[in-house]
Amino acid sequence: MSPEQPAPGRPRLSIATVCLSGTLDDKLDAAAAAGFDGVEIFAPDLIADPAPPAGIGARCRDLGLTVDLYQPLRDIDSTDPDRFAANLRRAEATFDVMAGLGAGTVLVCSSVAPDAVADPDRLAGQLHTLAGRAEDRGVRIAYEALAWGRHVHTWDASWRAVRAGDHPALGLCLDSFHVLARGSDPAPIADVPGDKLFFLQLADAREVTMDVLSWSRHHRLFPGQGGFDLPALLGPVLAAGYAGPLSLEVFNDVFRQADPLRTAVDARRSLLALAEATADRGAGTDPVAAGPPALGGIAFAELRAGPELGRVLRALGFSRTGVHRTKPVERYEQGGARILVDTAAGGAIGTAAGGSISTAAGGPTDTAGSGSAVVALGIESADPAASARRAGALCAPRMPRSTGPGEADLAEVGAPDGTSLLFCRTGPHGSGWSGDFVATAEPRVPGTGITGIDHVGLTQPYDAFDEAVLFHRTVLGLDPVADGEFAAPFGLVRSRALADAGRTVRLALTVSLLRRGEWGPGVADPQYVALGTDDLLATAAAARAAGVPLLPVPGNYHDDLAARLDLPDERIAVYRELGVLHERDADGDLLQVCTELLGGRLFLVLVQRTGRHDGHGWSDAPVRMAAHRRSRLTRAGAG
Amino acid sequence: MSPEQPAPGRPRLSIATVCLSGTLDDKLDAAAAAGFDGVEIFAPDLIADPAPPAGIGARCRDLGLTVDLYQPLRDIDSTDPDRFAANLRRAEATFDVMAGLGAGTVLVCSSVAPDAVADPDRLAGQLHTLAGRAEDRGVRIAYEALAWGRHVHTWDASWRAVRAGDHPALGLCLDSFHVLARGSDPAPIADVPGDKLFFLQLADAREVTMDVLSWSRHHRLFPGQGGFDLPALLGPVLAAGYAGPLSLEVFNDVFRQADPLRTAVDARRSLLALAEATADRGAGTDPVAAGPPALGGIAFAELRAGPELGRVLRALGFSRTGVHRTKPVERYEQGGARILVDTAAGGAIGTAAGGSISTAAGGPTDTAGSGSAVVALGIESADPAASARRAGALCAPRMPRSTGPGEADLAEVGAPDGTSLLFCRTGPHGSGWSGDFVATAEPRVPGTGITGIDHVGLTQPYDAFDEAVLFHRTVLGLDPVADGEFAAPFGLVRSRALADAGRTVRLALTVSLLRRGEWGPGVADPQYVALGTDDLLATAAAARAAGVPLLPVPGNYHDDLAARLDLPDERIAVYRELGVLHERDADGDLLQVCTELLGGRLFLVLVQRTGRHDGHGWSDAPVRMAAHRRSRLTRAGAG
Repeated sequence: MSPEQPAPGRPRLSIATVCLSGTLDDKLDAAAAAGFDGVEIFAPDLIADPAPPAGIGARCRDLGLTVDLYQPLRDIDSTDPDRFAANLRRAEATFDVMAGLGAGTVLVCSSVAPDAVADPDRLAGQLHTLAGRAEDRGVRIAYEALAWGRHVHTWDASWRAVRAGDHPALGLCLDSFHVLARGSDPAPIADVPGDKLFFLQLADAREVTMDVLSWSRHHRLFPGQGGFDLPALLGPVLAAGYAGPLSLEVFNDVFRQADPLRTAVDARRSLLALAEATADRGAGTDPVAAGPPALGGIAFAELRAGPELGRVLRALGFSRTGVHRTKPVERYEQGGARILVDTAAGGAIGTAAGGSISTAAGGPTDTAGSGSAVVALGIESADPAASARRAGALCAPRMPRSTGPGEADLAEVGAPDGTSLLFCRTGPHGSGWSGDFVATAEPRVPGTGITGIDHVGLTQPYDAFDEAVLFHRTVLGLDPVADGEFAAPFGLVRSRALADAGRTVRLALTVSLLRRGEWGPGVADPQYVALGTDDLLATAAAARAAGVPLLPVPGNYHDDLAARLDLPDERIAVYRELGVLHERDADGDLLQVCTELLGGRLFLVLVQRTGRHDGHGWSDAPVRMAAHRRSRLTRAGAG
Repeated sequence: MSPEQPAPGRPRLSIATVCLSGTLDDKLDAAAAAGFDGVEIFAPDLIADPAPPAGIGARCRDLGLTVDLYQPLRDIDSTDPDRFAANLRRAEATFDVMAGLGAGTVLVCSSVAPDAVADPDRLAGQLHTLAGRAEDRGVRIAYEALAWGRHVHTWDASWRAVRAGDHPALGLCLDSFHVLARGSDPAPIADVPGDKLFFLQLADAREVTMDVLSWSRHHRLFPGQGGFDLPALLGPVLAAGYAGPLSLEVFNDVFRQADPLRTAVDARRSLLALAEATADRGAGTDPVAAGPPALGGIAFAELRAGPELGRVLRALGFSRTGVHRTKPVERYEQGGARILVDTAAGGAIGTAAGGSISTAAGGPTDTAGSGSAVVALGIESADPAASARRAGALCAPRMPRSTGPGEADLAEVGAPDGTSLLFCRTGPHGSGWSGDFVATAEPRVPGTGITGIDHVGLTQPYDAFDEAVLFHRTVLGLDPVADGEFAAPFGLVRSRALADAGRTVRLALTVSLLRRGEWGPGVADPQYVALGTDDLLATAAAARAAGVPLLPVPGNYHDDLAARLDLPDERIAVYRELGVLHERDADGDLLQVCTELLGGRLFLVLVQRTGRHDGHGWSDAPVRMAAHRRSRLTRAGAG
């Protein structure tokens, strides 16, 4: 389709990059091809892009697009003068970006923060100050009432603030969603001076309610998959003398269209675990009768990848310490981290064919043959046989194994995503599972400071997410430690991390919030192993020097990081060089450096935790995902 | 996996059929294979099953499953004595079903109806009466408080009603969702006598809120796709003197992962149509400048299907009245219904390759080559050239056409699902598009009473639903006339019907609420043409006598229908014979008879409307979908 020429009097048509899927390039190309005149650029899209703002601005001009708005600047006003001063510094960094882009207007949305200013005069004063700074930089402030703003949440309240703020660089942004979702009357907008209407954002919406009825009909889960304290209900019911069945009635949009046999197994597991948990609190009979033994960490991760994996591990400071007696599997070690590498298809010490939880048509996602994958995880158990009994009692499918003479007979079960779990107890070299490996005579490679496996990240098949959470929660006895949701370049992602009490075993599970279609990331269901270090910068520098392909992180990310965390320039310079991602919360910091994808969907992450940070890098995941895609496309283009 | 033997003291484990995907057979097989002891049978699953209740009961016993509950009986109490008497008769029909199933307990949920009884004594009295009827039939009533019940919506209120009802066949059903979602304290349940706890249903749930923030971040739509009156906002903004761009800011989970070029075209169309609608109300400039000409019906439906289609049409009373001059397309007619049949691949008068709205990779769903499809619809327009201009102004992709010498040059555009729309004006035979057909010398087949095309049902590709609604709404000038959502055997389906003011053109669009995965219906994206008649029973009887393969409808459906609508036995007997589906609402009745699938994903429907019924058969769609699947599997088994 050829874009129409703007006719005289025709309104300019613009679109926010948030409306479109993909990375910023995809979005700009699509907006231009569809004939839009301009775009709003959403800050996270810019931050994940490798081009500096001026480069992005030039790209827009080349495409015939104006940058009509940069957005958003959030939570700008503050009852705390120091915080307001810091917010003004943050605004200056935003004005820098806008200068590069050639954007004349920035969206400032009403604050949702606890320190938002309630007093109208004070708010107007702060907006006036901000507008003055903007005017100095030649840009304008478009102030918008978020429907859920703390004090300003209607369009007329935002208009009162703008009028009182009384500055030529201060005007109103109206968003039809915020106006109409609150049921406000739009008619009086006609009385606002036109030159104070800086920007208009348009959106429609279906009436969507999430009253208890909708919640009940669409979003029920099996016991243990959600947040209800069900033993607190079942206990009194059993105490009352109820003798009927425990029956599940779960209306769930996903289960309604998933393989019913898988769902039924998942369902039964949930009831067994519920009855167990209720018996633990003194009511009823425990049908599992095999409590979870204490875990002691991830004994090993067994990976399938191309020949580059062994090379990368050596460059990371791993030594090849053993070769399996009968299978084409090699053992690499550094500190407490053990990686088993399958060197031939079908040669896993875990079953090669992936787990099959059911005999139904379709079956689970097959991880075999997809190039690279986490094939199996060794789970360090205080009592591996008891762990295996528990898994069996909870309907975990036992995987068929071939065990050579004299080899350790590891109990192996299949998780819902096809990854095998092997229960083991690692002793000195030469005992237990480790005894199945013949020690190599190779000299030890100098380490880079890696101390162990911090966690494993497993993207779940769409239908298997809640099932997987319940599986690991019950079979391994892990607890959910974090839930999240983030906007990845190709759609929303839900995440849930599980860990044992001692944080020795951590699994980070993610899934698309909606099943993806043809337009989607090139790498389906990525997986990673996160290797812990106490000095990430040293470890990453050594790895980089040894030729480990580290993932480049866009400069815009580090510019934003510097503005947010107030880090010294020298540190940011190192971050830029090594591609460090840095998250901070009240508990501490998480630093990460990722490798490029290693043959398909697998990558490694170097990670350092400080304080009691309990996260898994989800805030930075969209940046990492965009970087992996860019890197993959670049390499494909180069090859 | 082998089911475990129930150990002494182990609770019986049961699952409601609503938890599982598929038809009743799929669900029972899965529950048994996973080792459940029993099931709750949900009435709609039974109604869509061809076996009588006794046959279903026997199937459960063969699988080692008990039928622990039949559910639900809704809205049983009433302030209107006649209504209560009718409800008791409905209950007797349910007891009949239970006798067949061998189910001892039925779930009665608290009423949500306007005539629900508020007075506790009166409610207790009606429950006592109901329990007496149940006792006479040897079954029990388990009364449950729905969290959204009109007067009874907490478990303690339901317990007060049961206690006051004071009947040995009356007890409590507790559902953990209803108890915990309302934040009730479950501890006092321990004081309820155990023999009054008839049933326990268990479900967990994530905290799900649909406050305005979640609504905003996930469910925004482009203007014209939702329910907001956006011209009422844009008008005052333009009146105020706003001169900036019209900019879209739409956070939408589906758009986030759909092809961005398609989304961008859809987005631009929405702004053009919004500006047009606002200009129609007197504000701003109309960028479309080509209002929709009046429509006059569906001139023809062009279908691709196997050789059986022509045979079925003749048996339905259609005459083959013409053969296209240059293309392998035949014209069949009866009354005002015209069906064009493509007799060879690639021979459509509409483009054979399906519409391609974009040049992006992936592109639209390709309907070519999928066996059978609605290839094109002729749209009767008062001014076909103006319709085509409007379509172009609204970014509808023009389809390339080959037109032979002297043939009508029909403007053809591609709808988002790949169906072509051809704007035409049907004159006497030999003029306009009809002139492209050479009349056959075949004698006219006696008609069966078909008068025209009532509507066309088009299942949309998952990503294209909101886009398709906007396309037909704007390009054709149709209005949304009905929205719905129903639980189909393989997942939830959303539906939206569009029509012109005179109801001459009706399109019924449907889509899965979630994108389907590997476990899904064998027929993806079914389509149908509904043919109107003023006497459905006569038309269907004639069609049946002539050998049209009519879709059998389960006896359970007609039993339920008889109990609901109080129809005479003779009429129900005819319904059973012909497979009639019958919906009633306040405006009138809709009767339907469907054919079997004709070569892939296409079928025909005979439909009669009485009164001002404006529906499209969605209440009965799950029964129809289960019947089509069963019929298809049976034929596959027989072939």
